[in-house]
Amino acid sequence: MLDAPKATANDRRIEALLLHHALGEFNNAYAAALDEQRLTDWADMFTDDGFYVVISRENADRNMPVGLIYCENKAMILDRAVAMKTEMFAPRYLRHIIGNVQVLGEDGNGEIRARANYVVVQVLLDRPDAKLHQVGVYYDRFRRVGDALKLAERRCVYDSLLVDNALCIPV
Amino acid sequence: MLDAPKATANDRRIEALLLHHALGEFNNAYAAALDEQRLTDWADMFTDDGFYVVISRENADRNMPVGLIYCENKAMILDRAVAMKTEMFAPRYLRHIIGNVQVLGEDGNGEIRARANYVVVQVLLDRPDAKLHQVGVYYDRFRRVGDALKLAERRCVYDSLLVDNALCIPV
Amino acid sequence: MLDAPKATANDRRIEALLLHHALGEFNNAYAAALDEQRLTDWADMFTDDGFYVVISRENADRNMPVGLIYCENKAMILDRAVAMKTEMFAPRYLRHIIGNVQVLGEDGNGEIRARANYVVVQVLLDRPDAKLHQVGVYYDRFRRVGDALKLAERRCVYDSLLVDNALCIPV
Repeated sequence: MLDAPKATANDRRIEALLLHHALGEFNNAYAAALDEQRLTDWADMFTDDGFYVVISRENADRNMPVGLIYCENKAMILDRAVAMKTEMFAPRYLRHIIGNVQVLGEDGNGEIRARANYVVVQVLLDRPDAKLHQVGVYYDRFRRVGDALKLAERRCVYDSLLVDNALCIPV
Repeated sequence: MLDAPKATANDRRIEALLLHHALGEFNNAYAAALDEQRLTDWADMFTDDGFYVVISRENADRNMPVGLIYCENKAMILDRAVAMKTEMFAPRYLRHIIGNVQVLGEDGNGEIRARANYVVVQVLLDRPDAKLHQVGVYYDRFRRVGDALKLAERRCVYDSLLVDNALCIPV
Repeated sequence: MLDAPKATANDRRIEALLLHHALGEFNNAYAAALDEQRLTDWADMFTDDGFYVVISRENADRNMPVGLIYCENKAMILDRAVAMKTEMFAPRYLRHIIGNVQVLGEDGNGEIRARANYVVVQVLLDRPDAKLHQVGVYYDRFRRVGDALKLAERRCVYDSLLVDNALCIPV
């Protein structure tokens, strides 16, 4: 009997750990979808009302809404994914490294607030060296849809002041 | 009855995992405090007798003690944090990516020895591109203080031979 | 009684988490062995029939087999490790950051398929700044040998088109 409260505390720690791990798995699948340019898979990781924005730290700090990419729902995100096929841009490789995943809390509506740091390294096929393309933070709200997690919101706030070359593929 | 030893071995693995996770959470909070320039929050992550040094791999390999930053206790760390307000330096963004967290063991006094790799990316506001500012290893001793972990020691051993611009904000 | 299926599902999630953690621990030890140039420790992380190749994304995408390093078994890997002592190259520091570890599945023979993203930062001792040396993906097959994990295969597929300076130390 004496062990019961301890077991419960441990269960809560394990539950927190499993949630943290699930967000990590999500981010790894997200990175792989973008790095392998499977953009409809990427779009499918958002909820139907999913919000996705890529915005500079300067603008985010001042509550300015304008971003490099701004999508208010999944249709816009999917549009962005499909538009890639018609755009002209120099061929390139991207590699996302996502770390420092933090679960910040759970809202009343069951959404999970989280953040993570990201680094995107880019190699342009006509320039040989790998470059830091973008560095920043994902500010997220995750929603459980069936057994899966989906992004109800991902705000990508980047530190870099200049976007080298162009932001063709989402971050 | 047959399952009991197996359950115990599994419990130990889970306990190790929970500790590893707790150190990861600590490092993520540490990175966020520095990246958001909340330096008194940063100083508060050390014990009163906390030791903090930033030293080159060259010096560390030769057991030379001199570092870029050298603080023998929390008062010195706090002094460093507060001094930032009076210093003049070009505005900048930092982003810490902390990975490869390893728990190395537990000392007789209950302190946890650990290490992690770190990358600090810096953006100077008058130069547009993100740069690798510092890369290295944290060699740590953690102590449990109530329910929390605090750093009794963090030795930041950096690989880079030149510190670009200046080391204004701790790593 | 009602809790039994739930406990089992949770057990499976915990088991998956423990495996993920074990691969992370393995990769951290792997990185430390290379960063500290303990190359025989590195070679010992492979099975006797271990396959190790470092290959460009260009070649890997086209199923071309030629790589910068190509070892078909542990003897060749060990040979590579020992050969380092007779090679001439400029002194350097390396730092491996391994992230985005994903367990992809378990084969019929009990081998675990996995992947991870890696970044290698290099500092040449006669040039002061840290550079992105290589960025890519590890495609792995792990085998359980006793209580330990060993690499039955690690294919390092790198994005960078040019290898700066030389690839002296494995990735």
